[in-house]
Amino acid sequence: MFNPFFSNQGPFKIRDIIELLSASSSTNNLDAEVIDIKNLSSANKSCITFFHSKKYKTLAKNTKASFCISTDNLKDQISDNCIVLIVENVLVAVAKVTKIFYPDSVDDEFDNSVLLISKTEFKDSVIYGHNVLVGQNVKIGKNCIIGHNTIIEKNVVIEDNCTIGSNTLIRNTLIKNNVSILDNCIIGKKGFGFFPNNISNYRYPHIGMVIINEFAEIGCGSTIDRGSMSNTIIGKNTYLDNQIHIAHNVQIGNNTIVAGQVGIAGSTIIGDNVKIGGQAGISGHLKIGNNVEIGGGSGVIKNIPDNSKVMGYPAKNIRKFLKDNR
Amino acid sequence: MFNPFFSNQGPFKIRDIIELLSASSSTNNLDAEVIDIKNLSSANKSCITFFHSKKYKTLAKNTKASFCISTDNLKDQISDNCIVLIVENVLVAVAKVTKIFYPDSVDDEFDNSVLLISKTEFKDSVIYGHNVLVGQNVKIGKNCIIGHNTIIEKNVVIEDNCTIGSNTLIRNTLIKNNVSILDNCIIGKKGFGFFPNNISNYRYPHIGMVIINEFAEIGCGSTIDRGSMSNTIIGKNTYLDNQIHIAHNVQIGNNTIVAGQVGIAGSTIIGDNVKIGGQAGISGHLKIGNNVEIGGGSGVIKNIPDNSKVMGYPAKNIRKFLKDNR
Amino acid sequence: MFNPFFSNQGPFKIRDIIELLSASSSTNNLDAEVIDIKNLSSANKSCITFFHSKKYKTLAKNTKASFCISTDNLKDQISDNCIVLIVENVLVAVAKVTKIFYPDSVDDEFDNSVLLISKTEFKDSVIYGHNVLVGQNVKIGKNCIIGHNTIIEKNVVIEDNCTIGSNTLIRNTLIKNNVSILDNCIIGKKGFGFFPNNISNYRYPHIGMVIINEFAEIGCGSTIDRGSMSNTIIGKNTYLDNQIHIAHNVQIGNNTIVAGQVGIAGSTIIGDNVKIGGQAGISGHLKIGNNVEIGGGSGVIKNIPDNSKVMGYPAKNIRKFLKDNR
Repeated sequence: MFNPFFSNQGPFKIRDIIELLSASSSTNNLDAEVIDIKNLSSANKSCITFFHSKKYKTLAKNTKASFCISTDNLKDQISDNCIVLIVENVLVAVAKVTKIFYPDSVDDEFDNSVLLISKTEFKDSVIYGHNVLVGQNVKIGKNCIIGHNTIIEKNVVIEDNCTIGSNTLIRNTLIKNNVSILDNCIIGKKGFGFFPNNISNYRYPHIGMVIINEFAEIGCGSTIDRGSMSNTIIGKNTYLDNQIHIAHNVQIGNNTIVAGQVGIAGSTIIGDNVKIGGQAGISGHLKIGNNVEIGGGSGVIKNIPDNSKVMGYPAKNIRKFLKDNR
Repeated sequence: MFNPFFSNQGPFKIRDIIELLSASSSTNNLDAEVIDIKNLSSANKSCITFFHSKKYKTLAKNTKASFCISTDNLKDQISDNCIVLIVENVLVAVAKVTKIFYPDSVDDEFDNSVLLISKTEFKDSVIYGHNVLVGQNVKIGKNCIIGHNTIIEKNVVIEDNCTIGSNTLIRNTLIKNNVSILDNCIIGKKGFGFFPNNISNYRYPHIGMVIINEFAEIGCGSTIDRGSMSNTIIGKNTYLDNQIHIAHNVQIGNNTIVAGQVGIAGSTIIGDNVKIGGQAGISGHLKIGNNVEIGGGSGVIKNIPDNSKVMGYPAKNIRKFLKDNR
Repeated sequence: MFNPFFSNQGPFKIRDIIELLSASSSTNNLDAEVIDIKNLSSANKSCITFFHSKKYKTLAKNTKASFCISTDNLKDQISDNCIVLIVENVLVAVAKVTKIFYPDSVDDEFDNSVLLISKTEFKDSVIYGHNVLVGQNVKIGKNCIIGHNTIIEKNVVIEDNCTIGSNTLIRNTLIKNNVSILDNCIIGKKGFGFFPNNISNYRYPHIGMVIINEFAEIGCGSTIDRGSMSNTIIGKNTYLDNQIHIAHNVQIGNNTIVAGQVGIAGSTIIGDNVKIGGQAGISGHLKIGNNVEIGGGSGVIKNIPDNSKVMGYPAKNIRKFLKDNR
């Protein structure tokens, strides 16, 4: 994953990672170093990866990572070139390791580095309202407009010809040319990902960002959370209406239309030219094909192939839904 | 439609409109002028109108407009006194013509004309919080209260005894006496209306406004979009709870109660004394009668006659819903 | 109910209450005084209480209050030691009496007493952003962080190690140690409780507060309304995702997880270790047990016992839901 925003504190020695996780491992090479933690398919031999579900066994057999966090049950399905660190809970372990690589990615405290835009390099190049704040490591292109009380926190890139409304807050986000973000949005906060724990939940790091592609529009009062280990992506010329919630790691294709109050849960992937009616909800980790139409109020709980029209809760073929409910 | 806010750039010559639309027409009177674009029933002989669906054929037969944008299929159903401009896509054509009459109505860039209220004529007549901004062409009556960080953009009328909360943004809106608008609302932005186009969607002009009538209350975090060719209207003493979304052209009657997180899609008309339960959704272009009760979570996809009680998705008679689901 | 925030204007003479309500009563002791209005179980002999539904007849028989507002139908089921004031509509009468005891609890006008935090006692003890406002009767503990444009109105206690985001507004709320409240929230406004009336609805007083317990997290764009006659409570280590609406008097237990866009209607009580999926809605006055799982999109309209898994609208056993919809 391309990630310009969270600085990597690695490398770390395997000895230290084993100790952090109270892991068991057969390796003698405790002084070996890893420079990053990545998923099974994107990790290279300088990385540590993780394998927590049989679903990914083909990827595990072929990973190029030198080290892999996994369980006793799964350890035999991992590439022979990869040394396994055995733990009880893989995802908690991944959270701990990601946190040492990317310590800034866990909390979302407000950005104390912001200045009034009139005191920054953007004071002459941007048209802006009252009380606009801009943080460190921000780029803003040509012909951009930013409304009143809007806060562009650190780690934001806004390309050319973009319009940002009033009362909006953006962090950890890459906004391409000609995007409109309307009023009262929160873009780029950490996702709702954590491991439950009865005294205080254990938060999962979110080192991803939000990417909003060309000509997209985001309606008022919407929230788009940044990704955990990947990015949250809104496609080109995709329009979101008001009060929409897009969870972490969601990817929406191009020319897609999402009506008011829709919610899309984490890691779901949505195709191009999709139409989603108002108040529809889509569960996490699903794949919605291209040219799909989802009726208003639907609850989608399984994958939808290309060119389908669905409606209902759970969503089914729209003709069947209307016939069943005549 | 009474519209005090968007200035009309007309008249325009029919010659220029035909050219803009690449329309075909049998008229020889290319120098004729039209002063406005209105719908079939409200247009007079100085106007151009439009007819895009058989549903409106009775209105088309009786329109008083001198010119009408329509299609080859529909042209024979239009009043004999009205000259037809034939196009392929009526609504795209209407968008183009409306945009030349009302060029300000397409974009919703923040209002750069606002001043701190302490620098305006309202500094002594309004009770206001910190950082309140007020734009051009705003009127505020007696005994009004406006909370912190609230922005009253241009083209807003607030009558007497109104309370506006904090962090709220209002534009293109007429607020009658004794209305309360709570915190974090966005009132009067353009609706989610556009014609899909694969490079960049073609936005529909929104020349309507929002009208909020006497004693109404709008809950926190709600969004009410202004109308496109008509107004969005909230009735007298009608109460909206938090996080409600009211789309463009919706009309809600008097003494109606709308619970939290309800969404009402574009152009739906809702009667008086209606009760709508939490999270209910109502599709667009429907008519909900007087004294209707809609159960929480319902999805309403067809018209509901007066005095009905409905629940379910799709919504049906509430007794039937409860019996079917016993 | 422990209530540090709304000052009680009592005592009041029974004579004045009878007159206010146009009540009828057999008492001769018109000079007797009552110091507060409380519900049947918490009222003591210095209080007036109320009894409006047979459901509470056991409590009515045992109340310690000296006076009770009720109806002619119900009067014989009230404790013999308690003098009844007979009215037509008990709840309207309660609203009127509560309003004279707690006149500040009806309106939610913005707090005009706030100052920039840099002008308060908290300027050195809190880490804060731009344009942070703090009202009267506020306490903020050690190691707290408050983001940009956030307003802490009067009557708020924030204990130690709390993080409040940007653009958030808090009033009438008690926040315990180690709580996080993210951006754009409205916490502690009056609930959506009123008695419909065709000229102008009659608002119910809200003298309760919001209590958010240790290690809880409240997501972006959420609204939590304060209680009317009791408090709205979020349990320890309970996490709420974005765009959630919690109505007045709701109580949520500990270690509960609530996903995005969920709505919980007034006076519902939710147990510990509950998981609620995205966009689920829960009707008012229900009891959801411990360890319950509620699927995304569900509409819960009846009580749910401990350890149940439910889904659907109306919600039923999740296995049955999935089987019925295969």
